Amino acid sequence: MQKYSFYNDYSEGAHPRILELIQKTNLAQEPGYGYDSLCRQAQEFILERVQNPQAQVFFVPGGTQANLIVLASLLRPHESVIAAVTAHICVHETGAIEATGHKINAVVTPDGKLTPAHIQAVVDGHNDEHMVKPAAVFISHSTELGTVYHKAELEAIARTCLRNGLSLYLDGARLASALTCRAADVSLADLGRLVDVFYIGGTKNGALLGEAIVINDPALQKDFRYVIKQRGGLLAKGRLIGAQFVSLFQDDLYFELAASANRLAQKLAEGIRALGYGFLTDSPTNQIFPVFPNDLIVKLEEDYGFYRMDKLDADHTAIRLVTSWATKEEAVDEFLRRLSGKSGA
Amino acid sequence: MQKYSFYNDYSEGAHPRILELIQKTNLAQEPGYGYDSLCRQAQEFILERVQNPQAQVFFVPGGTQANLIVLASLLRPHESVIAAVTAHICVHETGAIEATGHKINAVVTPDGKLTPAHIQAVVDGHNDEHMVKPAAVFISHSTELGTVYHKAELEAIARTCLRNGLSLYLDGARLASALTCRAADVSLADLGRLVDVFYIGGTKNGALLGEAIVINDPALQKDFRYVIKQRGGLLAKGRLIGAQFVSLFQDDLYFELAASANRLAQKLAEGIRALGYGFLTDSPTNQIFPVFPNDLIVKLEEDYGFYRMDKLDADHTAIRLVTSWATKEEAVDEFLRRLSGKSGA
Amino acid sequence: MQKYSFYNDYSEGAHPRILELIQKTNLAQEPGYGYDSLCRQAQEFILERVQNPQAQVFFVPGGTQANLIVLASLLRPHESVIAAVTAHICVHETGAIEATGHKINAVVTPDGKLTPAHIQAVVDGHNDEHMVKPAAVFISHSTELGTVYHKAELEAIARTCLRNGLSLYLDGARLASALTCRAADVSLADLGRLVDVFYIGGTKNGALLGEAIVINDPALQKDFRYVIKQRGGLLAKGRLIGAQFVSLFQDDLYFELAASANRLAQKLAEGIRALGYGFLTDSPTNQIFPVFPNDLIVKLEEDYGFYRMDKLDADHTAIRLVTSWATKEEAVDEFLRRLSGKSGA
Amino acid sequence: MQKYSFYNDYSEGAHPRILELIQKTNLAQEPGYGYDSLCRQAQEFILERVQNPQAQVFFVPGGTQANLIVLASLLRPHESVIAAVTAHICVHETGAIEATGHKINAVVTPDGKLTPAHIQAVVDGHNDEHMVKPAAVFISHSTELGTVYHKAELEAIARTCLRNGLSLYLDGARLASALTCRAADVSLADLGRLVDVFYIGGTKNGALLGEAIVINDPALQKDFRYVIKQRGGLLAKGRLIGAQFVSLFQDDLYFELAASANRLAQKLAEGIRALGYGFLTDSPTNQIFPVFPNDLIVKLEEDYGFYRMDKLDADHTAIRLVTSWATKEEAVDEFLRRLSGKSGA
Repeated sequence: MQKYSFYNDYSEGAHPRILELIQKTNLAQEPGYGYDSLCRQAQEFILERVQNPQAQVFFVPGGTQANLIVLASLLRPHESVIAAVTAHICVHETGAIEATGHKINAVVTPDGKLTPAHIQAVVDGHNDEHMVKPAAVFISHSTELGTVYHKAELEAIARTCLRNGLSLYLDGARLASALTCRAADVSLADLGRLVDVFYIGGTKNGALLGEAIVINDPALQKDFRYVIKQRGGLLAKGRLIGAQFVSLFQDDLYFELAASANRLAQKLAEGIRALGYGFLTDSPTNQIFPVFPNDLIVKLEEDYGFYRMDKLDADHTAIRLVTSWATKEEAVDEFLRRLSGKSGA
Repeated sequence: MQKYSFYNDYSEGAHPRILELIQKTNLAQEPGYGYDSLCRQAQEFILERVQNPQAQVFFVPGGTQANLIVLASLLRPHESVIAAVTAHICVHETGAIEATGHKINAVVTPDGKLTPAHIQAVVDGHNDEHMVKPAAVFISHSTELGTVYHKAELEAIARTCLRNGLSLYLDGARLASALTCRAADVSLADLGRLVDVFYIGGTKNGALLGEAIVINDPALQKDFRYVIKQRGGLLAKGRLIGAQFVSLFQDDLYFELAASANRLAQKLAEGIRALGYGFLTDSPTNQIFPVFPNDLIVKLEEDYGFYRMDKLDADHTAIRLVTSWATKEEAVDEFLRRLSGKSGA
Repeated sequence: MQKYSFYNDYSEGAHPRILELIQKTNLAQEPGYGYDSLCRQAQEFILERVQNPQAQVFFVPGGTQANLIVLASLLRPHESVIAAVTAHICVHETGAIEATGHKINAVVTPDGKLTPAHIQAVVDGHNDEHMVKPAAVFISHSTELGTVYHKAELEAIARTCLRNGLSLYLDGARLASALTCRAADVSLADLGRLVDVFYIGGTKNGALLGEAIVINDPALQKDFRYVIKQRGGLLAKGRLIGAQFVSLFQDDLYFELAASANRLAQKLAEGIRALGYGFLTDSPTNQIFPVFPNDLIVKLEEDYGFYRMDKLDADHTAIRLVTSWATKEEAVDEFLRRLSGKSGA
Repeated sequence: MQKYSFYNDYSEGAHPRILELIQKTNLAQEPGYGYDSLCRQAQEFILERVQNPQAQVFFVPGGTQANLIVLASLLRPHESVIAAVTAHICVHETGAIEATGHKINAVVTPDGKLTPAHIQAVVDGHNDEHMVKPAAVFISHSTELGTVYHKAELEAIARTCLRNGLSLYLDGARLASALTCRAADVSLADLGRLVDVFYIGGTKNGALLGEAIVINDPALQKDFRYVIKQRGGLLAKGRLIGAQFVSLFQDDLYFELAASANRLAQKLAEGIRALGYGFLTDSPTNQIFPVFPNDLIVKLEEDYGFYRMDKLDADHTAIRLVTSWATKEEAVDEFLRRLSGKSGA
């Protein structure tokens, strides 16, 4: 028997409706490089929800590309970006941002979230040409630790950025999960007015690949396609990403998929909590971080795939369980049964 | 009526058998980042044909990424790459190679092909630390002008590279067309022994996206996945590319698709030649470059999409006509009828 | 006997008056990094001559640094710089500009000079995001081939740049020679109004090291010291460069030194011409490029140091002879005697 | 009255014997770019002390350049360097290392020193291609906090590097001070066998500018001059740096200057300690960090120049006092008198 994977939210392929549209439009001739009718339609669907008449949408294949392209385009050579030390760009992109020439000012945070105080402290600590000049702020929503920002928190960060002349960039690899979780009070329209740039993640919410970068600030849109092309992010058959975002946004599929993943992750979390276990962070989204005794983890690993995160003490470790749009409810139920010792497996 | 596109070989989606396999394997859980069973199978199919027991295969989404990742991985900071001035990396990648820090030594050639003499002249002209140090050679097969290398030519280039300590890298965006054209005497196994690195293009031969980089030289394989990841080329759902190369290489589909494109391009070329027109280059592949009077071009543009290339004199311009695996024979016939003035359209 | 060097204009140390001022101010405590009183005074002397009230002056140790710092500061990632194929940045800086991420659009010219037509052709040939976007023009005055721009030529280039939104940058490694040669009709004040950025070369006109970058365009001055520091161009003891430019510009020493070098180079040229030899270019400055039979060159090399440039045919080669502020008139006379076969050496 | 500067060790010019040699050799013609007789002699003097027959010496103008050139030359694109969070490359080089494309793995340390445990923890935390690959270790001797390594500590670090395949690079901006302080048990010959690359700082020990990079590992010497040139570190009149290192190393001047600076810094420290004040770190070198009440600092600032470092609590701040080869003993005595309240100033 193969292990059931809670490793991540990209273990399965695409939602069937996405594949259907790719299939249906497959043989039509279309212009290359994102000028096709599917990309155009997807851009319109997204802009309707973002509700910022100045915004523009650009598609790239993946999240690391989104991050490096946005920041390379935003920053002058001596400028840096402020991020949580747990941010994807700090840890899990093999130095992609530094490879474009820019330092990341890493801030230690307990929950993966930045605050105005964090940002202000970095700005205040950089005051002459012997140091980099912080010029952008990178936040993830949801964060790498499953946490989310409340609207009031985002507004406060946006004000801090405005006051200090910083661009605000939001990594939305798991934006769908953040927007649909129980704690959510932020909408795409809020992002359309509060941040300068953000991306709407497809890969981790039912697409085969593809992220939609939304640039609200017209000054930052200039020549953006040049930077995408230079970094290898302009697919010849851009229609592939276009079709997927059409499928996700022509109705509420994008939100329904994430809501399903969230519901099952929270069902897992409640079950785990009910059995008396604690968590590394309080995550309302599709990534949860329960703390288990090491010997329990070894036993769970026989049947389930998941990552070990931090060792908390000699005997306890936090693990990461991730659900996706394709996670089966029976798998969640079975995991909880196994955990409670009631399963026969 | 929409114009029929001879713009390029990526106007349509994927070959139906590719979509079938994506569909069929869609819901299976697979590891991320190219460690899935589809990528593994595709690597095996490719290595069987390359016949170099030391070779390794890596997948990336597109050709610009393939080029920038390979060269960034190969070269030390002061090292440069020699290429034809018409090479994709010289003209159509928005300075992607320079953005990784490296100069391209551009060589003027009439037909897009490099010769040992070209390479030796660049090497001989760079002899101290005030100049870059040429360390790699970039060739395209087929070239951006539709031409191909003969095996003897490749062997001579390989010897020149070996003698001068240069790595030899072959861009195979249109490799299928080169390997199956009437002039072809080069096989994948030849590339497995003659070059250090090459890539097998998927995007321009029936895939939605994806290129398979083959590294023959074990020294150049070291940490190559790090560089792919850093440049944003490691897809979370690597299975998408894996499935496509399985479809293309589990039988001869890859070669059949290119043979079809070649046949129709050559049918076009013969028809055009029979009507008395000349060509910019002598291309046996799926890109042809007929020279037409400007007023004829204007007329053709009413019904067909294609690019204008070089103006040859005040009245004549070379255009580019490209066929793909999906080009319809009737479209070729109709184009020739129109050209001969016999069409009623 | 050691050979007399006509290799370059940096074979000797500094003009004695420069060393005197370094010595005289040596023990005074001064602020670091170019905020000392000597740099301030030098900036004032220079700005008096540049006569642009918005201009600012920055010092860096050398010419390659000046070029890479200015261009890295000017250009966004996808932007390129247009230059003659013989330009220092194209050939003799080991890919320093590419190492900052930028392509150079190299233009073939017979005499090292760019024209409006050259520039316009490059701009016109770059029209979408698949290619780099030319955003700056690099010219040298005097050029690497000893030639200079006339004021009308500079004005025409400046208009072309303005019309196309290009920044105009002038490399003045040998600016003193250009400004004082017999053909000169350009002044520092002309550069203060015609170009966006230029540098006044110290190293090749009597200083130990040091170049003064003048930025006329206030928009390009922003955070410029950050970029200097990041590239390692901000000397802790900036006073060293400050003192030298004070010495060179508190009176006319800068111009006198170059005038002397020019006079002796032209004396050499006239003597060579009188003996019936031709030249690679018509240079009015301190670098001349006579064409000699190869066996004569071998003979001259017994007693003189100089570089061989282009082979013109099987029997003739152009060499480079360079004079400096410190070149001795007797050495020039002796060279001419030797050439005419009248010397007893 | 001008304030007496304890800001740094580069407030004055060069030691008079250095200026003498520059003067004396000024008019001799020499080859450019570090191939002159002075550089050659300086290299020999240094190699005699380093006592590693495989070592080579290269000169660059400044410390930021030394660091960025060495690391750019050492590292492949995905590789990173481990350093203390207080390291010069982390804080005070405007992101120079990141501008060459590389991440710094910053380690929190109380005293600016790295230990084998720090290094091992970073290595152990980076284990796949989603993260950078640590490939070098950067240490400063003396550190930015005035502390030094003992020989046994360096040996332990060297073993850790060897075991993990890391290159060990030592920043010697203040190497002279470290080698001559009361705590010193490390010699240049020790560095010749324990580290892979280090630099001998000139700027902060009596030179006008210039650092001597010593590369012990022959593999790392390859093409190093190319990288120096590319980054603008190859002075045309390399003789300027050569002459200074000849002066510093033809006898013991290099060590005598540092010993003098150390003695006066320690005299300052002892006087301050005797008055009951504490220190941020226990520094045996020419930088000391006393902790003073804020109102005392305000008073001292009337007559002395120095930097404020960390605020320790609401009322106390650590300041930095730096002595140089040129610091006057009377200035130290007067500072202590002023501090004790006995001065009449």
